[in-house]
Amino acid sequence: MCGMDGCLVKCSSVPCATPKNDTKDTFTTINLDHGDPTMYESYWRKMGNKCDITFNGDDSLSYFANGKSLCWFLESKLEEQIKRLHNVVGNAIVDDYYIVVGTGSSQLMQAALYALSPTDQLEPISVVSATPFYSSYPEVTDFVKSGLHKWAGDARTFEKNGLYIEFITSPNNPDGVIREPVVNGNEGKLIYDLAYYWPQYTAITSPANHDVMLFTISKCTGHAGSRIGWALVKDKEVARKMTKFMEISTIGVSKEAQLRAAKILEVVSDSCLDPKMENFFEYSQSLMTDRWQRLREVVMANDFFVLQKYPLQYCLFTKDLCESHPAFAWLICKGREEEDCQKLLKEHKIHTRSGRRFGSDLRNVRISMLSRDEDFNIFLKRLMAIRGPTNEN
Amino acid sequence: MCGMDGCLVKCSSVPCATPKNDTKDTFTTINLDHGDPTMYESYWRKMGNKCDITFNGDDSLSYFANGKSLCWFLESKLEEQIKRLHNVVGNAIVDDYYIVVGTGSSQLMQAALYALSPTDQLEPISVVSATPFYSSYPEVTDFVKSGLHKWAGDARTFEKNGLYIEFITSPNNPDGVIREPVVNGNEGKLIYDLAYYWPQYTAITSPANHDVMLFTISKCTGHAGSRIGWALVKDKEVARKMTKFMEISTIGVSKEAQLRAAKILEVVSDSCLDPKMENFFEYSQSLMTDRWQRLREVVMANDFFVLQKYPLQYCLFTKDLCESHPAFAWLICKGREEEDCQKLLKEHKIHTRSGRRFGSDLRNVRISMLSRDEDFNIFLKRLMAIRGPTNEN
Repeated sequence: MCGMDGCLVKCSSVPCATPKNDTKDTFTTINLDHGDPTMYESYWRKMGNKCDITFNGDDSLSYFANGKSLCWFLESKLEEQIKRLHNVVGNAIVDDYYIVVGTGSSQLMQAALYALSPTDQLEPISVVSATPFYSSYPEVTDFVKSGLHKWAGDARTFEKNGLYIEFITSPNNPDGVIREPVVNGNEGKLIYDLAYYWPQYTAITSPANHDVMLFTISKCTGHAGSRIGWALVKDKEVARKMTKFMEISTIGVSKEAQLRAAKILEVVSDSCLDPKMENFFEYSQSLMTDRWQRLREVVMANDFFVLQKYPLQYCLFTKDLCESHPAFAWLICKGREEEDCQKLLKEHKIHTRSGRRFGSDLRNVRISMLSRDEDFNIFLKRLMAIRGPTNEN
Repeated sequence: MCGMDGCLVKCSSVPCATPKNDTKDTFTTINLDHGDPTMYESYWRKMGNKCDITFNGDDSLSYFANGKSLCWFLESKLEEQIKRLHNVVGNAIVDDYYIVVGTGSSQLMQAALYALSPTDQLEPISVVSATPFYSSYPEVTDFVKSGLHKWAGDARTFEKNGLYIEFITSPNNPDGVIREPVVNGNEGKLIYDLAYYWPQYTAITSPANHDVMLFTISKCTGHAGSRIGWALVKDKEVARKMTKFMEISTIGVSKEAQLRAAKILEVVSDSCLDPKMENFFEYSQSLMTDRWQRLREVVMANDFFVLQKYPLQYCLFTKDLCESHPAFAWLICKGREEEDCQKLLKEHKIHTRSGRRFGSDLRNVRISMLSRDEDFNIFLKRLMAIRGPTNEN
């Protein structure tokens, strides 16, 4: 019943009937497939009751929010704290932008596709992203066989003339690389997915000011369970259409989740400004730095994998030179081309996502770096046991 | 800036620069277009801190829920309280059903369409509902021009052979009538929208046991802002596909909203079982009875409109004969066929939804019966001022 592939969730909640001396270390597959950001729990535990929020029975019954926003269901407290945090961190311009809130950034991707797709064309617009691209883009674009938009694959090999939409994920999921648009067309609409453009992952080199920018609290503060994302949108008509999408799709976004997200973002900003508090981004950056260093040591020792390298860049937030410490490790097997890295790691009870899902090779896998300490430690221990040809000699 | 059509939301939140003696009564359009269930605030205020729920900073970071449900993001507390409430009220069978949670029932409608649409057909499946049908069905079915399903209008005039999906809303939105399937086909898949099958609106005549049944907390307890709906699904594969839809669309449903909904439903069930508490459904039913009685008196007095009539039925929950008191009034102008009832009411500063939106006539409008007392009283006062030909003599 327990200890099988992919049963981490079940094992965490259901007592396992394993023999006395068996531990999770031996029997459980570690799930690093999703970027489940439980690493951040330790920071929030330290904050004690600073982020507590209580809802009374008669709070937030209405569909409508209390603000004056074009996005009629956006709570004004959340709008305020989103703007404040971007100003504190300096990772995006917010003045003269419309904010659209979503049930996570997945819903905002669909809303942006809906808003940017022309309605007067016979053919659906092509949607592209450069490989390796976020594995959800093809699914999110095509899952209901929309006549508005159609997944057209790798932006680098896209040659069609005319209209297209390009997703630019920067830093990129899965490989953490800083990206620019790839298609060299005049009629492209660009969606910037900036979920990972926060100081714990990468240097903040300038405030982003693109037409459509997507963010999510999941990867900023770790509160993935809240399902709160937001879009910064320059054009009023695009923001209006995205809001319309949310209205039809889910009649807005949970008020509880919005108000709690506002509280969490408030504490994050406070922690950056109040020297008596532990700076959230410094704390998270130091966790990520430590994990990446330990991972690189293991990878170097067993001589079987390669990891992406990142340049040193000056970060305007930390006011220091920073190396990237992405939320995912993009691991490549050194071996033969047909090596199935995901399968290999699964045999060692490490559940990852195959490069194939990102439009890339079987030799690649994406591994979440955001698990709890316990799982990360087990992962490293198991990875260490995999030996390359040199070590086998 | 204020006092204009449709500005109720803004007027409630922005101080209006109206002259000293002007009141909302005179200057503001009353918005009864949405079924915004603020009527229920009074009950929840009475409950004091019984429903309070507090979230700490380190709660619910993970995407995953703590349960063992097929719907991997469904919180076990919510699952438990949904089952308990249906058992207490007796309005639906839950044993051997799978529960899928959604961001309101709108998202579950799309999930059900996704799960029930065949993937091996060249043509999208026809989706129908008998007029007057819920105004969102056409939009929800067609807004991204899906190749899986296509809105085909009134179920009564639907003649196509072969596969189809029929929405059965019972009690019906907009007109409160109890409904059965209309299309007489062998290859139909049925989605029962039972949002209003609760004792404050209608007699509970038997526990529903259809293949796919949709419910929402918005219309059950009034917590529309939470965006929590649930589906009871008989077939495992359908439940799995609906869960997949949620996964792609929004990677699950807000944990805060789910846990608060669990708390609210728990108190509702408690109120039905504990004689020391004020029974939620009795309280709400008495509010609805009073509102409907006052509305019928006004309608009779001004002799310009007709209201739907409902049969007396024995309710298994209240153990008494009950008349229906729907969440919406379906008002019909007695006048000429081309009478635009929505326009007429708008001139009297009552914002309603035109019959046209429900596949019906301009002479009809849908009016929310779930507003706050203040707005309902102003609505009645304004409606009273509209006089039919008899009264004009």
